[in-house]
Amino acid sequence: MADPRSKAIQFAHDNRSRFLDELDQLVAIPSVSADSTYKPDILRAAEWLVSKLKNLGFEHVKTLDTGGHPIVYADLMKAGSKAPTMLVYGHYDVQPADPLELWESPPFKTTQRGALLFGRGTSDMKGQVIASLAAVEAALTAGSVPVNIKWMIEGEEEIGSSSMADFIKANDKLFACDFALNPDAGMLAPDQPTLTYGLRGLAYFEIHLTGPAMDLHSGFFGGTVRNPANELARLISGMHDDKNRVTLPGFYDSVRPLDKEERAEFKRIPHTGDSDYVREAGVTGLWGEAGYTAFERATSRPTLEVNGLLSGYTGEGPKTVLPAKAMAKISCRLVADQKPKQVEQQLVAYMKEHTHPAVKWEVKMISDADASISKRDSREMRAMSKALETVWGSKPIFRREGGSIPVVAYLQDMLGAECVNTGFGLPEDHIHSPNERMHLPTWEKGIDSLIHFIYNLES
Amino acid sequence: MADPRSKAIQFAHDNRSRFLDELDQLVAIPSVSADSTYKPDILRAAEWLVSKLKNLGFEHVKTLDTGGHPIVYADLMKAGSKAPTMLVYGHYDVQPADPLELWESPPFKTTQRGALLFGRGTSDMKGQVIASLAAVEAALTAGSVPVNIKWMIEGEEEIGSSSMADFIKANDKLFACDFALNPDAGMLAPDQPTLTYGLRGLAYFEIHLTGPAMDLHSGFFGGTVRNPANELARLISGMHDDKNRVTLPGFYDSVRPLDKEERAEFKRIPHTGDSDYVREAGVTGLWGEAGYTAFERATSRPTLEVNGLLSGYTGEGPKTVLPAKAMAKISCRLVADQKPKQVEQQLVAYMKEHTHPAVKWEVKMISDADASISKRDSREMRAMSKALETVWGSKPIFRREGGSIPVVAYLQDMLGAECVNTGFGLPEDHIHSPNERMHLPTWEKGIDSLIHFIYNLES
Repeated sequence: MADPRSKAIQFAHDNRSRFLDELDQLVAIPSVSADSTYKPDILRAAEWLVSKLKNLGFEHVKTLDTGGHPIVYADLMKAGSKAPTMLVYGHYDVQPADPLELWESPPFKTTQRGALLFGRGTSDMKGQVIASLAAVEAALTAGSVPVNIKWMIEGEEEIGSSSMADFIKANDKLFACDFALNPDAGMLAPDQPTLTYGLRGLAYFEIHLTGPAMDLHSGFFGGTVRNPANELARLISGMHDDKNRVTLPGFYDSVRPLDKEERAEFKRIPHTGDSDYVREAGVTGLWGEAGYTAFERATSRPTLEVNGLLSGYTGEGPKTVLPAKAMAKISCRLVADQKPKQVEQQLVAYMKEHTHPAVKWEVKMISDADASISKRDSREMRAMSKALETVWGSKPIFRREGGSIPVVAYLQDMLGAECVNTGFGLPEDHIHSPNERMHLPTWEKGIDSLIHFIYNLES
Repeated sequence: MADPRSKAIQFAHDNRSRFLDELDQLVAIPSVSADSTYKPDILRAAEWLVSKLKNLGFEHVKTLDTGGHPIVYADLMKAGSKAPTMLVYGHYDVQPADPLELWESPPFKTTQRGALLFGRGTSDMKGQVIASLAAVEAALTAGSVPVNIKWMIEGEEEIGSSSMADFIKANDKLFACDFALNPDAGMLAPDQPTLTYGLRGLAYFEIHLTGPAMDLHSGFFGGTVRNPANELARLISGMHDDKNRVTLPGFYDSVRPLDKEERAEFKRIPHTGDSDYVREAGVTGLWGEAGYTAFERATSRPTLEVNGLLSGYTGEGPKTVLPAKAMAKISCRLVADQKPKQVEQQLVAYMKEHTHPAVKWEVKMISDADASISKRDSREMRAMSKALETVWGSKPIFRREGGSIPVVAYLQDMLGAECVNTGFGLPEDHIHSPNERMHLPTWEKGIDSLIHFIYNLES
């Protein structure tokens, strides 16, 4: 008789079409979190998961009221108190399907064309949730699962996971675990399994400057009153030095430097050379902090970027106004161990020191997320690395990622649980866009590798 | 029998109420140039002036088709070929009356309350046109007018006199004159007659920067692609040095310096101290080019001010976009002998030298006007200065003004005619606003001083 691992793999292969049916059922529920008219579908998607987890034999299966969209919770603590507890993270909400007319098949129905399965959420991330459920079902059916399992599947990821920080903090005992699995981090290419161990954080600000009490006539006051738009430009300009480093006081103090091993690993990553960035951005050359490659700057170094500017008259033609106000939206991507609150204080200190005394200013932090770095040599990272290597035949790449997944930092900070960030979505999957799709061979390998991962956790 | 000058003054005093009736007739025609629904009223106002000038005995009275609103022309060359020819400039168009609900009496009807006469155009500048017509009528009635007179009364001043440059150039023989009188320049206070001998010019630009081919995700590209909004801020910041001087190459080369006499004269001007600017602008302190007073900076030195900024996302909340484009409206107030075209070249040279090579840029000049300085000791300036002193009992102040009256520079450049810029409107007249008004005692003195001016021109 085959060992449980092989039995589980066989089970998964035998049940692929049923798993795809389940994915179709979940995709058919338009659980769009951004639009309140879909609230009943949000609840239906959560209930679908509750029902599925109950069928798998999970206990304490329930929806948790976060105040926003509910979290689906379940656990199965049958591996014993000496076995590790894994929290599987996922989200059942999806992006809106607009513009509908650009879809070549209905967004809320899976449609296979060749090796691709189209439908909203197939890649981000209902397909990943179904893959995780499939792998767990296969292992539970085969037996000898060496890990306790909890599920935390939220419904607000596409709208910023705004309920998550407070909710995880308030329910830290319920979610307590040794590590988490997050299959929402994707991979670099179909032949390139990927582990994402670093995510950038975010500190997003609005800066408001006020000069004169009202808009003035530039003919009567030009050259004599400090213009808040000119002042804003001067302040923003001063936020970088001539090496393109951010000048906010203390900005780099808590930045964990890139080590040699990481920088060597990054060189293995395909399509991330400077010329790739040039091509993708449609520019003739790059810019950034001296001493780093484009990939390093975009994933592993902190930034300060203007996201929006508004002042004075912006309509057609000339209007000779000396504006009373000027506004900038400015955000910093952060890396471990920078904290948004600290960066806010640094920005305030900068504004205090540099703003013209006749210009009033206000800094508001309107969004924030912690950065995170996971250990690359933990038991679970080694288990996942080996699983991916087994299935793909090549070692996964360890990469950092320039964007933010706030929940990863919450789990780290509030539960002390590091995340294994992987997944089987591809860069070309059109997530958040019309004709979202997933690559079926990659998804099938994904299920196999999650099964290997589970058995690799056996100590 | 009294001399002609005294007879003319007496005539003006005897006919004041008729002059006010005429002003009421002209105010009653809502000749709003900015709104094409008032086009028939524009033409009616021009016809009213044609009729009036014919009644005064002027010749060649006509409306001239400029392509836009017509110019009213007339002449009376009876003083002989040795006498100077004066071109009286004016405009019969007015600003819109909105918001109507803020008017305390109907805008297009003159209403006297105490010493004030309310109505759109009473101050800017139908009142000044009627005062000029009244003075000329009085002198023609009294006889011995020592000057040939031409009229050029336009209908587009409130919308930028856009037809004037080409039209004056094309009709330079018709408008040929020795000097011009422009009673649209106002005075500083009821007890302070004023001659405006310097007006600033304007060079108004739009700067468009383009970075990446499309808006990018700041998480994926932040720190590695030059952000056009950051670049715009850097470029604008660099347009002033640490003495708040404009850094465009060659910007000050053709600036006529203020002389000692002018700076001494400026100190006599009431309510133009630094504290007055602070109060009027509603700021806690001032800013500007080192070495000059606020008044000098606002009237007699060139400037560079941002009038508008727009880039990226400016709506509510955070959006982590690295914008593809950034735009600034920037205008320079110019002083003699700067030329808008030269400043455009200087700005282009600055952009060429300083813009990041991966950011495309475009500079468009969307409005321009030459600066002007008139001689303070010409025959006509002395004649007007003496006239004002006779009526007010104190010497007029010679001032420069921070705004632009483009036609003054056109007359100088195209006809070689310097303008005597004066007028009897006051800063508190609410021009361009609801409840526009004029101060009747000042207006009456204005008529008298224009009569004295005419007779003072006798050589």
